[in-house]
Amino acid sequence: MQLPNPIAWTSAGQIRLLDQTLLPSEERYLVLDSVESVAEAIKTLRVRGAPLIGIAAAMGVALAAEGGPEQVRAAAAMLGATRPTAVNLHWALRRMERRADRAAMVGEALAPALRAEAQAIWDEDREMCERIGALGAPLIPHGATVGTICNAGALATGGIGTALAPIYHHQRLGRGLHVVVPETRPLLQGSRLTAWELTRAGVECTLIADGMIASRLRLGDVACVLVGADRIAANGDVANKIGTYGLALAAKVHKVPFYVLAPTSTIDPSVPDGAAIPIELRAAEEVSEWQGVRAAAQGVSVWNPAFDVTPAELVTAIVTDRGVVPPGQISRLMD
Amino acid sequence: MQLPNPIAWTSAGQIRLLDQTLLPSEERYLVLDSVESVAEAIKTLRVRGAPLIGIAAAMGVALAAEGGPEQVRAAAAMLGATRPTAVNLHWALRRMERRADRAAMVGEALAPALRAEAQAIWDEDREMCERIGALGAPLIPHGATVGTICNAGALATGGIGTALAPIYHHQRLGRGLHVVVPETRPLLQGSRLTAWELTRAGVECTLIADGMIASRLRLGDVACVLVGADRIAANGDVANKIGTYGLALAAKVHKVPFYVLAPTSTIDPSVPDGAAIPIELRAAEEVSEWQGVRAAAQGVSVWNPAFDVTPAELVTAIVTDRGVVPPGQISRLMD
Repeated sequence: MQLPNPIAWTSAGQIRLLDQTLLPSEERYLVLDSVESVAEAIKTLRVRGAPLIGIAAAMGVALAAEGGPEQVRAAAAMLGATRPTAVNLHWALRRMERRADRAAMVGEALAPALRAEAQAIWDEDREMCERIGALGAPLIPHGATVGTICNAGALATGGIGTALAPIYHHQRLGRGLHVVVPETRPLLQGSRLTAWELTRAGVECTLIADGMIASRLRLGDVACVLVGADRIAANGDVANKIGTYGLALAAKVHKVPFYVLAPTSTIDPSVPDGAAIPIELRAAEEVSEWQGVRAAAQGVSVWNPAFDVTPAELVTAIVTDRGVVPPGQISRLMD
Repeated sequence: MQLPNPIAWTSAGQIRLLDQTLLPSEERYLVLDSVESVAEAIKTLRVRGAPLIGIAAAMGVALAAEGGPEQVRAAAAMLGATRPTAVNLHWALRRMERRADRAAMVGEALAPALRAEAQAIWDEDREMCERIGALGAPLIPHGATVGTICNAGALATGGIGTALAPIYHHQRLGRGLHVVVPETRPLLQGSRLTAWELTRAGVECTLIADGMIASRLRLGDVACVLVGADRIAANGDVANKIGTYGLALAAKVHKVPFYVLAPTSTIDPSVPDGAAIPIELRAAEEVSEWQGVRAAAQGVSVWNPAFDVTPAELVTAIVTDRGVVPPGQISRLMD
């Protein structure tokens, strides 16, 4: 089973990043050696997916370690300002800052310490993906058709993904599934990324436009829906890619179980509910243009939130590396 | 208030058609003088919108009249095979065939009779649009924000539209509304057509991606949703552009009134319910590409139904030229 490696270290200690904005037509890798270039890559979605953004940001902070504690703090501030919704970013940055503080306190060399911490964040994420895959797999009947949205796969994490992890878990064991992939406008992470990585991995999939989701679930053959998350509030409300809320409504109506799969780093116990999660608004051109081609009349206003909030009552269960829990009990995992 | 004229006769008796596939970047008019070219224009969506397809097909049959009754029958068969879902097409063709039969029976000249009949279908559609506008307008609070999908405006009819007719009715009286326009993938009739014609007419609008619909309705400021229809079954189930069903589900959850606006020619009393309405499946490339740019990995399967069915229980009322009725009473209008 062939999965992409969206991030890596080069032998010279730079960051090698798959530019996801060019997929699927081009598989180009960037070599980043500055915090600024990592921040740019996160802002422009060359690297995306809540867990992978956390890993990339941690690696970015490690790049700044040679400059000393001041530079580390500045790097964390710059990277923390790139995208507001995914909490893994802030979680990873806080962890890197704490590691820098500890190194300073005991007189440890900063650069190797931060590099090792970034590597640990990545390694732990890979492990979390495996556990999510193993815990989520029994929720899916063998040979089933499942739904998803956006990309919560290998391209969004340091491992086999979150929402797609149980699918790859089954695939490795030779138990094929069929995945219905909404294209996920405006940036087409479904058609550009999910369909690409599933196809490469040998998993059958069917692409649909986002407006087809409700009709597709109505057909009655989708066994469950698996989505990732960018932030989960203490009450179990879930911020995820725009379109997830409509998908969850359609799943509820058609009695299709709706599972959210995410590492515990995605849970934000400091946020009581979804209304308190900051939602990133992005540029009008993402909607009014399509791969550089103008689609809408000039001068039309656009509303372009990158995420929406699915209320906990629409979520059947949340699958984390620490267990499968009803959304209302998510904060227990943080004890 | 400036509205487009998507169809017209030329002085030489050909059909002048606005090529809607090129909007909004180019406003190009085609001159069609054969049934084949009209059939091609319908199939490729150069002309679209259930009522306008009916008018275009009627005008296409009129072009064949010089060839005699045999040619008229062949033209109706060819045009009837272009698109399966919109019933106005078949309604208009049957009407043209009946008119040809009557002309033959009384020894009337075929060409002027059929030209007059096509013109009558168009004129009646223009009148129906006006009545739909007048009957629908009181359902919308002054200054409200309303939602729609696809294009059911001047570009879809022989007049001021169906779903957009009440909006233009208010606009003419100087009472501005704000319209939320989903882009309507795969063919972007929302961003390409509706945003264009509303902007030209001076109506404020905001473009969103289809996946944003549920979140937009959740904000609470959308007073009602107005959509067109391609076919209405005897029980009030409504076939309309793919995405309409998901929009109706979201409207129901958020207690937003959901109105279907259509001329009575859209009602098909021969079809008991939505399950019996044939749904057109279109080419994979409409989803996997856009204007020739590939979006999805090669070889990915695509499911691309052009329409969906909204069950009558999600429809607040159906606004026709003969009155505003609950969906369950739609067949009464056909008596």
